[in-house]
Amino acid sequence: MPSESIRFLNRADVAVCLSKMDATEVVAQTLRDHTLGRTELPAEGYLSWSNSVGAYSRAIAMLGAVPSGGAMSYGMKLINASVSNPARGLERAGGLSFAFDPETARPDVVAEAGLLSAVRTAAYTVVSLRELGPESFDEVSLIGTGTLARVHLDAITAAFPAVRRAYVHDLDPARAAAFRDDLRELCPELEIVVVDSAERAAGAAPVLVTVTTSNDPYIPARWLSAGQFVAHVSLDDLTEDAFRSAEAIFVDDLELIRENPRRIMGRLLQEDAVGDPPSLGEVLIGRHAARRPDRGYVISNPFGMAVLDVALIHAVAGVARETGGGQLLDLL
Amino acid sequence: MPSESIRFLNRADVAVCLSKMDATEVVAQTLRDHTLGRTELPAEGYLSWSNSVGAYSRAIAMLGAVPSGGAMSYGMKLINASVSNPARGLERAGGLSFAFDPETARPDVVAEAGLLSAVRTAAYTVVSLRELGPESFDEVSLIGTGTLARVHLDAITAAFPAVRRAYVHDLDPARAAAFRDDLRELCPELEIVVVDSAERAAGAAPVLVTVTTSNDPYIPARWLSAGQFVAHVSLDDLTEDAFRSAEAIFVDDLELIRENPRRIMGRLLQEDAVGDPPSLGEVLIGRHAARRPDRGYVISNPFGMAVLDVALIHAVAGVARETGGGQLLDLL
Repeated sequence: MPSESIRFLNRADVAVCLSKMDATEVVAQTLRDHTLGRTELPAEGYLSWSNSVGAYSRAIAMLGAVPSGGAMSYGMKLINASVSNPARGLERAGGLSFAFDPETARPDVVAEAGLLSAVRTAAYTVVSLRELGPESFDEVSLIGTGTLARVHLDAITAAFPAVRRAYVHDLDPARAAAFRDDLRELCPELEIVVVDSAERAAGAAPVLVTVTTSNDPYIPARWLSAGQFVAHVSLDDLTEDAFRSAEAIFVDDLELIRENPRRIMGRLLQEDAVGDPPSLGEVLIGRHAARRPDRGYVISNPFGMAVLDVALIHAVAGVARETGGGQLLDLL
Repeated sequence: MPSESIRFLNRADVAVCLSKMDATEVVAQTLRDHTLGRTELPAEGYLSWSNSVGAYSRAIAMLGAVPSGGAMSYGMKLINASVSNPARGLERAGGLSFAFDPETARPDVVAEAGLLSAVRTAAYTVVSLRELGPESFDEVSLIGTGTLARVHLDAITAAFPAVRRAYVHDLDPARAAAFRDDLRELCPELEIVVVDSAERAAGAAPVLVTVTTSNDPYIPARWLSAGQFVAHVSLDDLTEDAFRSAEAIFVDDLELIRENPRRIMGRLLQEDAVGDPPSLGEVLIGRHAARRPDRGYVISNPFGMAVLDVALIHAVAGVARETGGGQLLDLL
């Protein structure tokens, strides 16, 4: 029997691969493919339990297929989480992403999923800003200062070099201060201003990104103003009133959102309170006109699509194979 | 952020761990737990495609939970396959099994799945032989001489030391001869007799194990005789007539089999042709009487249960953690 190996990429290896490719372009192309019906996303595997401190814990296995070149790429993201992880000093979610060999079906690359997932999310925000954001902006606001906030600032400053200042807020002031100090090293040209309330952060810049762990919407329409773009990444920050008063709303996948009424926008869709907003993919393929904030504010509400993860792990796996990234582990 | 690691076990590492534990007892206990409703098996993730030579290829992600001690253990098996793999010199199926930390939900052990899967299957056969096989036997027959055949002979000779001779048949005589030569080294006390027809193999011993890749049943009732036990592991070897004439039939999970009419017994269940046979788990907990072959032959038809894989990866992971088995890989 021939020996078989599998390539393992830890977070640092993934970061090296990502630095050699354009995650934003991968995400934009996959959004187009998805909108054109060229991707596959079967029902996910899902298992949940309560851990010993009663915290909701779960495993999600998301298989998917995306076009690449003339063929298809197949892969999976296993993303597990426990809500008690942050109290242990761990990221809430963690897991592994896999690229499959399309000929043998073998998983041939396995990679740390947390960074990939954050980069996917930030790349989506960048694409949405390009298509739906203010014509120009040099400041952004972030509510929440975890890994997603860091990766967002990294992606936004790379894509929009005019951005020179970020207002940040966190329920935990020490966390916000530590974030500011970290970012000073990572992005020395960016001024980080810690603000002491979510309301001040929401109103401070023409671009607002929510990257919290909120389960309880708290941003009303009156905190927002004309010309603003809100990337509602953490999905439970904007109130019903903020949705109802928006100039326009864009989604990643309407059905994904509708199926999850635990999130504010899913509930609003089930109540038929906000119509059927168009998707960013429809804007990208020209099926729907873009709408930048003008007399009001525009909301982007991305649920999170596993096909984007599959596309990204395949692009990363391709770079890793070409450059010998990560570790080749003997499997058999 | 704290660093995180994951323990990786390749096939050799898995084999070392398995040698330090009793896979048969893990499988028997999990069958009891499953029958008592103490396991969880959510719907699996499934993705299939045709590869460049038109061969059916697929990925299956099976999450599951099993009791262990007073708590539950959570895990997953990712098992992919392409029917063109054997022609490439590869095992048809391959993949990875995962144990999750019940507190953080993190996958903390990842292991080569092929050997675990084969050992699980063979352990099930051993449990079925103990409960439902002939009172005593010193010869077995195997049709098919791949990895499953090898692992079966290993498990059967360990559990039934009286077994001194195995009759084997394979459609490919060279493969059967190579198998005999391999086994001479692995189990020198076992005499391997290669026979030139499936019919001769089927009739040669009181225990018959089918471990083929057949999609087309070929073993009629007249090849079988009173006092015989058939472990119908490969699921498409026995004909309808063989099922209808059996003295008794036992399954692992009736619903799993019924849901898959592509396999002969699933079809027969859907046609209500063989009643509702009891499960081995029901025998183990005393809910149903065992039935050893007497005036006829007894069939065991195990579809394959992911909870057994989850139980086994957890037992293996436990041994690996205790003994420092495998490699600890930096993840973050």
